[in-house]
Amino acid sequence: MSTPSGTGPTGAMLIGARPVVGTGREIRSVDPRTGRPLEPGYPAASVHQADRACELAREAATPYRRTAPERRAAFLDRIADLLDAERDALVERAHVETALPRPRLTGEVGRTSGQLRLFAAELRAGVWQGARIDPARPERQPLRRADIRQRRIAVGPVVVFGAGNFPLAFSTAGGDTASALAAGCPVIVKAHQAHLGTAELVARVVGRAVDETGMPEGVFSQLVGGGKELGTTLVGDPRVRAVGFTGSRSGGLAIAAAAAARPAPIPVYAEMSSINPVLLLPGALQARGAELGAAFAASLTLGAGQFCTNPGLVLAVEGPGLDAFTAAAAEAVAADPGATMLTPDIARHYAASGDAVAGREGVEEAGHGGDGDGVACGRARLLTVDGTRFIGDPALQTEVFGATSLIVRCTDVDELTAVLGVLEGQLTATVHADEADLPLAGRLLPLLEETAGRVLFNGWPTGVEVGHAMVHGGPFPATTDPRSTSVGTLAIERFLRPVAYQDVPDALLPEELRDGNPLGVWRRVDGTPVRAPLSDVR
Amino acid sequence: MSTPSGTGPTGAMLIGARPVVGTGREIRSVDPRTGRPLEPGYPAASVHQADRACELAREAATPYRRTAPERRAAFLDRIADLLDAERDALVERAHVETALPRPRLTGEVGRTSGQLRLFAAELRAGVWQGARIDPARPERQPLRRADIRQRRIAVGPVVVFGAGNFPLAFSTAGGDTASALAAGCPVIVKAHQAHLGTAELVARVVGRAVDETGMPEGVFSQLVGGGKELGTTLVGDPRVRAVGFTGSRSGGLAIAAAAAARPAPIPVYAEMSSINPVLLLPGALQARGAELGAAFAASLTLGAGQFCTNPGLVLAVEGPGLDAFTAAAAEAVAADPGATMLTPDIARHYAASGDAVAGREGVEEAGHGGDGDGVACGRARLLTVDGTRFIGDPALQTEVFGATSLIVRCTDVDELTAVLGVLEGQLTATVHADEADLPLAGRLLPLLEETAGRVLFNGWPTGVEVGHAMVHGGPFPATTDPRSTSVGTLAIERFLRPVAYQDVPDALLPEELRDGNPLGVWRRVDGTPVRAPLSDVR
Repeated sequence: MSTPSGTGPTGAMLIGARPVVGTGREIRSVDPRTGRPLEPGYPAASVHQADRACELAREAATPYRRTAPERRAAFLDRIADLLDAERDALVERAHVETALPRPRLTGEVGRTSGQLRLFAAELRAGVWQGARIDPARPERQPLRRADIRQRRIAVGPVVVFGAGNFPLAFSTAGGDTASALAAGCPVIVKAHQAHLGTAELVARVVGRAVDETGMPEGVFSQLVGGGKELGTTLVGDPRVRAVGFTGSRSGGLAIAAAAAARPAPIPVYAEMSSINPVLLLPGALQARGAELGAAFAASLTLGAGQFCTNPGLVLAVEGPGLDAFTAAAAEAVAADPGATMLTPDIARHYAASGDAVAGREGVEEAGHGGDGDGVACGRARLLTVDGTRFIGDPALQTEVFGATSLIVRCTDVDELTAVLGVLEGQLTATVHADEADLPLAGRLLPLLEETAGRVLFNGWPTGVEVGHAMVHGGPFPATTDPRSTSVGTLAIERFLRPVAYQDVPDALLPEELRDGNPLGVWRRVDGTPVRAPLSDVR
Repeated sequence: MSTPSGTGPTGAMLIGARPVVGTGREIRSVDPRTGRPLEPGYPAASVHQADRACELAREAATPYRRTAPERRAAFLDRIADLLDAERDALVERAHVETALPRPRLTGEVGRTSGQLRLFAAELRAGVWQGARIDPARPERQPLRRADIRQRRIAVGPVVVFGAGNFPLAFSTAGGDTASALAAGCPVIVKAHQAHLGTAELVARVVGRAVDETGMPEGVFSQLVGGGKELGTTLVGDPRVRAVGFTGSRSGGLAIAAAAAARPAPIPVYAEMSSINPVLLLPGALQARGAELGAAFAASLTLGAGQFCTNPGLVLAVEGPGLDAFTAAAAEAVAADPGATMLTPDIARHYAASGDAVAGREGVEEAGHGGDGDGVACGRARLLTVDGTRFIGDPALQTEVFGATSLIVRCTDVDELTAVLGVLEGQLTATVHADEADLPLAGRLLPLLEETAGRVLFNGWPTGVEVGHAMVHGGPFPATTDPRSTSVGTLAIERFLRPVAYQDVPDALLPEELRDGNPLGVWRRVDGTPVRAPLSDVR
């Protein structure tokens, strides 16, 4: 039933794990090197087709969430295996659509399949259920204590918006999809317009895995649509219960507003905007300013600066160390030939928002790279400003998506702390510190924790490990919901909610809560974590 | 500095743990038996005073969240001890202000102090931090894996709206306050207008505990205000980071809308509206219809029906069993003398909303209780309607706050299932089932889980255990956020967010993440829960 492996993109969406061609207006991805529209065209989903995807997701929601965790793990593993098998075709198509280098895209396939396997492992580890048991106390006076047990269940269908800057790891079968499917939620993806072919190839892989592992067909759909109409329709649909999004601040805020305006509001996990401050403490700067400058420039220009965690802001106290840093960074940036960005629109927006910052009073350009060639090229830029101007000018405190960074020259540590204090919420905050800087780093740490979702020492924020401990999230506007992460196993919690069972007969309880603990999950019995059956605990 | 124990209410608020008299318009609680305003008057907080409370909370936020869990546990224990010591004075004042019976209020003091002690125990159990460690892998190719660790930190100042129906357990030092203080968040309470004196006495106890355990003064304030102004001011204040609320649907929605409209939105945990369906399955109904009817009436009329979990809806298949149930329930309700409700306004609203339901087409009254005496009395009411009418009439599907319940007579199990399917989200869903009903109960269970935060068998939803496994929450409109609970230890998660630490030197890490695990907390190391130091795990 599904399109055979090896076939290229056909212009189809996926509804209920089956290829379906949209009946709306056709849209196309564009080759960002040339600006030319790519084959094939993708007719957009009609209202009726969007409705069909939602209805299939609703029908699948209960049976899918009640599948054994091991079955969902096998499903995720199968997607991962099929993705790896299609790696070369995925890399080729994504390379044409995004201009991202092939080695980066090859790595991204591995990141995507690895992420799916990590969630499969998480399902098997038996912690995600959040199982808790407070056994009955029949002898309690004046009233018997009831037997109360708790677990988390999937919230229902989730809409995922594919991200432009990670055509694989944050798109069709990326982190939001993997965590939602792991949680037991059907997923409807809105494919990103910039890589429709890649999205189709990946969706086809997911559809095959649905078939091969016998999942309900409505567990996965992918729709195509230009403009905001389709997204608004999906976020407003009463059958949809949560939303995952990675993209622009304006896009994320529009989705969050639409979700909050529903008769029954739903949570939106939008990862939006971050400038990722990098603090260079005096000791580190003095010892290795030039070395840090070169390494910083490499992080800044990686992937044309199109990472959510791109270091867009450097904070340091003025002096020879900072001068050496700036000179080395400017030199490295000057050697950058310029790079094709994801789309011509992004490149235009990058140039305009960089110019806007560069044109603010007190901002100087410390260096810039080449212009590259092609219609969507971005030029790396290094700007500097003093701390007082930065604090007084909110226009300097917002994200420029791309390889532009602003070095803030502070007069002293107090001003540096004040600069930190005016920042909005961030995905990351980086500290470069030598041994002698540790007391100062320790004093700054509480403020960094309150500002960002991840604090890192002596590294660079680009490069987000996929593991159990990662937090890729943070206070607004880094995300709309800082209580979770969009990378790492904690992301599964976004799509779960707790349910309590009081005096429910053992045979009717979900397996993770039965006395005998047949799944061997971790449970808090009267508050203490154990894996043993209840009879061994009491 | 604080007012000595033994003094009655004085008309003061508490700002930064110090008694302060408001400078706004005076408001008073009312004796619901007589409608007469009570002494003393409470001048409302000025804008300046509200600002002062927020500023003190902001100042306290960082030092307070960084106190050792053991110190916060001692603080909560101290509040609990002081509350128990003041029990008689609290019960007397609350009895005058709410007309709730003294034994109920005595129990509520115990519930409140027990809840504080449970959160103290939770702080000591070392699970709430959600600690995770993915140790570095220096040997990994092509890139070293960084050392990444995760824990949860307090989100910052929390505004708590005291609830009218639980003057102690859901008010000044109730569940929202206890869980926020445990998490490490300063709390600003907006006292409920219906029990200002009780609120003052409890706030004074919290203030004493702040002093005695050396907490930062801004960790607790309580403000007084009439109308919606103070609440709107507090929810909109940029220093406030989360809101807890228990009350009406309109109140909760207004707060949620205000929080979503902020430049930086914040989470609102509002527990609002639930009719708590009770399903009587055929076997149970046949075996003990009359017995169930009498027990149901007791749950319905408990506390004048003023529980969030009051059973406002009964679903059953028509027949002799349901007839016996209805007759017995009607008889028990008829014997109810009527009870004074919390305020004259609530009693008026109760009568009007009950009349509105009773006046819908097809609704009949099966019985009612006495009118009681006094200005705020509510009459218990038992209404019935058939399943078809219920499904077709949304006006029958909303909450009547008080001792009115609607019995829905279904033609068969399919219609009963259809009735369940139209319900909004609920705090609870109750099943009465005998052995022979279990297959049917098993088929209904998935739908019940998806509808409610707690599913209970062969009991009554009133009576919410305070423990580790309880969920007092549920899908909208039971709450604005079904991902948590307002009762039980899981409630602490509402006021925490995760932070990751990458390659942070051991000496700078928070204690719960250090290699040696000096606090002995539970941590997931590469995904596996352990309490041992890292050196014993790797």
